[in-house]
Amino acid sequence: MTTRTTTPRQDGFRMPGEFEPHAGCWMLWPCRSDNWRLGGKPAQQAFVEVAKAIAAFEPVTIGVSRSQYQNARYRVPDHIRVVELSSNDAWMRDVGPTFVTNDKDEIRGVDWQFNAWGGLKGGIYFPWDQDDLVAQKVIEIEKTDRYKAPFVLEGGAIHVDGQGTLITTEECLLNANRNPHLFKAQIEQYLKDYLNVEMIIWLGRGVYHDETDGHVDNLCCFIRPGSVALTWTDDTNDPQYKISVDAYERLQSATDARGRRLKVHKVHQPGPLYMSETESQGVDQIEGTLPRRSGDRLAASYVNFYIANGGVVMPFFDDPQDEVARSRLQALFPDRTVVGVPSREIVLGGGNIHCITQQMPKV
Amino acid sequence: MTTRTTTPRQDGFRMPGEFEPHAGCWMLWPCRSDNWRLGGKPAQQAFVEVAKAIAAFEPVTIGVSRSQYQNARYRVPDHIRVVELSSNDAWMRDVGPTFVTNDKDEIRGVDWQFNAWGGLKGGIYFPWDQDDLVAQKVIEIEKTDRYKAPFVLEGGAIHVDGQGTLITTEECLLNANRNPHLFKAQIEQYLKDYLNVEMIIWLGRGVYHDETDGHVDNLCCFIRPGSVALTWTDDTNDPQYKISVDAYERLQSATDARGRRLKVHKVHQPGPLYMSETESQGVDQIEGTLPRRSGDRLAASYVNFYIANGGVVMPFFDDPQDEVARSRLQALFPDRTVVGVPSREIVLGGGNIHCITQQMPKV
Repeated sequence: MTTRTTTPRQDGFRMPGEFEPHAGCWMLWPCRSDNWRLGGKPAQQAFVEVAKAIAAFEPVTIGVSRSQYQNARYRVPDHIRVVELSSNDAWMRDVGPTFVTNDKDEIRGVDWQFNAWGGLKGGIYFPWDQDDLVAQKVIEIEKTDRYKAPFVLEGGAIHVDGQGTLITTEECLLNANRNPHLFKAQIEQYLKDYLNVEMIIWLGRGVYHDETDGHVDNLCCFIRPGSVALTWTDDTNDPQYKISVDAYERLQSATDARGRRLKVHKVHQPGPLYMSETESQGVDQIEGTLPRRSGDRLAASYVNFYIANGGVVMPFFDDPQDEVARSRLQALFPDRTVVGVPSREIVLGGGNIHCITQQMPKV
Repeated sequence: MTTRTTTPRQDGFRMPGEFEPHAGCWMLWPCRSDNWRLGGKPAQQAFVEVAKAIAAFEPVTIGVSRSQYQNARYRVPDHIRVVELSSNDAWMRDVGPTFVTNDKDEIRGVDWQFNAWGGLKGGIYFPWDQDDLVAQKVIEIEKTDRYKAPFVLEGGAIHVDGQGTLITTEECLLNANRNPHLFKAQIEQYLKDYLNVEMIIWLGRGVYHDETDGHVDNLCCFIRPGSVALTWTDDTNDPQYKISVDAYERLQSATDARGRRLKVHKVHQPGPLYMSETESQGVDQIEGTLPRRSGDRLAASYVNFYIANGGVVMPFFDDPQDEVARSRLQALFPDRTVVGVPSREIVLGGGNIHCITQQMPKV
């Protein structure tokens, strides 16, 4: 594995949009009992269902730690690849590589610094040493070259249109617990250098009570260049209301890298949903890990979906909005099959389908 | 990963000779301090030199446990791939898959049962649970189908000519600590079924004081169909003498699957070599692991080489015989470059270059 000392921008590599063709999808295996209830068994079942749904469209590989290898290999169907790969938790979107491609059919992986969503100043658990090695290990299994980015970033904190535009949030990227030594202009320059974008659209806050400090991938994403989906509520008393209105206004007034106005599609949220007493009691309470408390508002959003080759795999919450949202997304993705997968067990752990997946583009 | 319920023979797959073209080579990373002296650092250096020598001819991948990942990635040059892969020690020949191919350019992996060279009746260490998963994990990274063989076998216990002939030893394959429930005829049938051979040539004992119960790959190997190399000594007082003479006579009187008489090439051994007091003292003494004692005869043999694409990588022992053996092998492999790598640190751990490597054929 060659680690390049240049940047993707210098070498003519860009991050494709998620809606561009994939070679496959990477995931990790949930097992830490201080985040996933009942020893992770319900979450494992949910992850398997997500993997199966995606594998109907493209190849899926799941990385699993040594101690869980045989259990994972038993629970995961044969047509989904399982490889040994240690991690501290199971958020492949945030700890995995961001793949970039050029117009000569070459692919490389960007390995960001990772500090568990805030390090010692509000991070979710300690340590995160194995998470920080995941990108490198995936890149080496995939036999691509690597860029080592010199700043903290999670894959869930960004979305791109593949045509020069990036969307992110101030709450996350300008948070003092990520890159306190960098000014906004420096962060913008790094994003431009490592993802080869021209235009950065800054939203404000992410979804209410999202423990990632407002990852954009739970709030808003590109459906295609020029078109975005935004999680929404009409309930003016919901703290999410102001967040979505602010994002809507910023998106409406933005232009993308090619000078287009964005078309913004509202997708109404479920619930609101809350963690139950039973659910909370199934989680180990460990000093240093974000506690899972009864009554906690869940950061549930339908926007946290994964776009696969010919498909969209979206969260379902056993909520009346599920089918409404699915119809909405199906209309927005007329050429793909939109599939809902029950994912309450995933959102209980702090994220959703987009957070636990990472695409590898096809070249 | 699909696990086939048929056998390679039924499906028309055979094990190619090691001298046939390779896609690459797999190795593991040595680190257990109850087998490798000084925390494994000298062995790690020796393994790196072997990997570099092979990588001059074909791609090399090294599997390493989580705890040694960063150390290995630092010590191994970039052009050699490093992947996370747990094991109990570092003998990829014996714990890795045996790949088989068909005439339609397909490749599959055979996953043998492994019991650390004898299980609870003379095995070298306990437990061997991670070793027994290595083949499956390699197969899954390589994305091939798998056969799960229903008996204990190590890759170092067999050599094939790729044309229907297999050589092995009675000392190992008929040992009561491997497959005590199987008669010789049943073992022969399994070898025929899983490697698609017709003719099995049985040698008697392996190299003197070889802790594997006499693996053939330290004693004798195919150079090409119809031609074998045999480790040799002219010293009638050396316990190796009778072993080599017996093997020579059996090989001389054998015919291969195509009815050919074998041409047997003697390769004189180094030494004899013995473990020093200093070397022994660098190894942790652990109940249940084969002790490394000062004065132990080392099972050193030049036949324990690896055939790569266009090359042969052979053990050197800082012995006057090194260059003699290299010239001998160079004459036997006129179309390959024969390279010697210092490997005393490997033989101190109980094997040599062939034992720590496993080829993946090219299809």
